[in-house]
Amino acid sequence: MTAELAKGLEDIVVAESELSHIGGEAGTLVYRGYDVEELAAGASFEEVLYLLWYGDLPTREELRAFTDTIASERAVDDGVIEVLETLAAADERPVAALRTGVSMLSATDPETDRSPGDAEAARRTGRRIVAKVPTVLAAYDRLRRDKPPLAPREELSYAGNFLYMLTGEPPGTVAEETFDMALTLHADHGFNASTFAALVIASTLSDMYSSVIGGIGALSGPLHGGANEDVMEALLTLDESDMTAREWVVDMVERDERIPGWGHRVYEVTDPRAAILRAKLEDLAEASGETTWLDHITTIREYLVEEQRLLEAGIAPNVDFYSGSVYYQLGIPIDMYTPIFAMARSGGWVAHVLEYQADNRLIRPRGRYTGHQDRTFVALDERG
Amino acid sequence: MTAELAKGLEDIVVAESELSHIGGEAGTLVYRGYDVEELAAGASFEEVLYLLWYGDLPTREELRAFTDTIASERAVDDGVIEVLETLAAADERPVAALRTGVSMLSATDPETDRSPGDAEAARRTGRRIVAKVPTVLAAYDRLRRDKPPLAPREELSYAGNFLYMLTGEPPGTVAEETFDMALTLHADHGFNASTFAALVIASTLSDMYSSVIGGIGALSGPLHGGANEDVMEALLTLDESDMTAREWVVDMVERDERIPGWGHRVYEVTDPRAAILRAKLEDLAEASGETTWLDHITTIREYLVEEQRLLEAGIAPNVDFYSGSVYYQLGIPIDMYTPIFAMARSGGWVAHVLEYQADNRLIRPRGRYTGHQDRTFVALDERG
Repeated sequence: MTAELAKGLEDIVVAESELSHIGGEAGTLVYRGYDVEELAAGASFEEVLYLLWYGDLPTREELRAFTDTIASERAVDDGVIEVLETLAAADERPVAALRTGVSMLSATDPETDRSPGDAEAARRTGRRIVAKVPTVLAAYDRLRRDKPPLAPREELSYAGNFLYMLTGEPPGTVAEETFDMALTLHADHGFNASTFAALVIASTLSDMYSSVIGGIGALSGPLHGGANEDVMEALLTLDESDMTAREWVVDMVERDERIPGWGHRVYEVTDPRAAILRAKLEDLAEASGETTWLDHITTIREYLVEEQRLLEAGIAPNVDFYSGSVYYQLGIPIDMYTPIFAMARSGGWVAHVLEYQADNRLIRPRGRYTGHQDRTFVALDERG
Repeated sequence: MTAELAKGLEDIVVAESELSHIGGEAGTLVYRGYDVEELAAGASFEEVLYLLWYGDLPTREELRAFTDTIASERAVDDGVIEVLETLAAADERPVAALRTGVSMLSATDPETDRSPGDAEAARRTGRRIVAKVPTVLAAYDRLRRDKPPLAPREELSYAGNFLYMLTGEPPGTVAEETFDMALTLHADHGFNASTFAALVIASTLSDMYSSVIGGIGALSGPLHGGANEDVMEALLTLDESDMTAREWVVDMVERDERIPGWGHRVYEVTDPRAAILRAKLEDLAEASGETTWLDHITTIREYLVEEQRLLEAGIAPNVDFYSGSVYYQLGIPIDMYTPIFAMARSGGWVAHVLEYQADNRLIRPRGRYTGHQDRTFVALDERG
């Protein structure tokens, strides 16, 4: 066998896509031709979902119908809540509880698995999944804190309803806007590992649930999701230490420790999502008067940029450097950051599955066999 | 972007592997250097699992310890049974119930997610999953038939215990041997779509549950699992029709309909697994006196080989052509065939995840963006 080994598939183009484009050199991220900064600032997450799934931004009437439908599909059956209760009693990780909860939803979906290859049915199923992910997640978080889950409120936005179901209070404007932006910023990102996992599954013409669950599974790995959790854990360690932020970062650099939230495999200069979240972190700090995390982050950034000259070396703060503090300031538990990433990215997974299945080809690569040749079988009784 | 589009990854070698080799031209399948025919005839499924996971066939002592451990890990918590009850009430597909059931198991696994990168912990977790899959599946099938699930019996073999839990009776020797062989024949098959889905997930250093669930999801798609279900459905249609088997196959050929269970993407001549299952189907027919399915299959095969000359055209009966009738004759419901495929293949998924994570690289391919460039964002109020 002479084919080259393409482990990791770094340079392999697996499909064409009209969904998102990462301009690594320029530091840009585009969804269907729109800069993500503009979408984050000017469009709701519901508009972004519509854009990803239908190709264009909705008119006001289209958006109203779409938003109403999604809002009406938020509730989950009691059976799902009971399972989440069992999982909470076993102290399951939230991201794994989300995986199980979403898997369970297929049982009561009126369309899943019934019509493989029916693109419109798959789109509706995808919509139901994305509608219910916040409900599953918020219910799980409340159950493990011995609080009763809250029914979704249809009149709230996707972002606002999630924060309401999590905290029990309708969020303030800054919190809702910030969370909505964070969802938009995480909605899609090319053929990342979780999206690709969803596509490999979808390429067998499997159903949307199986594909999204594959995405959640991939995202739950430490090499994919979880970086913003690391950032926040680091900031908490710093905050609980005797060191100032400057002393802490100097110490980290001197000990040659990696600072979480810096550098990105595909962005050579800046991560366009980082600046947006930085601005929202400032808004949140101002609105709440709690500036601890903004201060720490600003000090760390200044030191790394001005004294270590990391930007000149092509290492910039990425989206995770800011999102951890943003979520923390919104009162979200740290182990919910990865499942929230999954909540946002579900929109992208669904969009990619729809796009791929519209021109489907089974994804079935080859391996190179490097094992034994021609071993002679010896029956159990005659083995050494 | 000039890289070639490699949709489907047909000619892309994604990894090296010592696990299995498919000799498509010669019609051979090898696990770690042993012909699958020899393993099917001479080794139990437990020996094959050991071979795949540890690299060599076990000695009698190693096998006893391994078998005892797996047997002791078969039971599942009441919480899992309760979920399966809920799913059965909703008439969930068995393969989706298996996906949810396995996902739920991670909550009570003492090691999962706690130690990413710990190969021995991953191996133990994989073993627990493979131990429990038959229990989940048999319990689900009984629950949907309004029968109480049966506790696993440690003194029975992996194959025998599954058939016992499914039917309520310890199986006869021929049935147990046949099912054991079928498991061995389906345990691994290179970098097929479900195995690759498991690996994409595993490459983020995600846990074994997420990887196996990804495999189940991929297998549940009609382009991957399910072919033996199609064969059996076709045989039942034939049996319920007024036609003889010969009339039926002549009619199918004349109408240019595809005969399920013939031809295979990777085997150019014969599928080595087919002949083994054919012999077992003969044993089962003889033992039970029920020769309907063997007769139908023999007639169809003779016509296609002798009059249509399909073998000369490189189209041979594959494993699915026989496995459907074998499972049917064992009294297994048709929609359990794909989840049983998953039961067998779980052994391969676990082996591949362990092998890949031992020399891990994140699987993150590229896409080619073919969407809009530079669209100008228009706020909702100003849209048409």
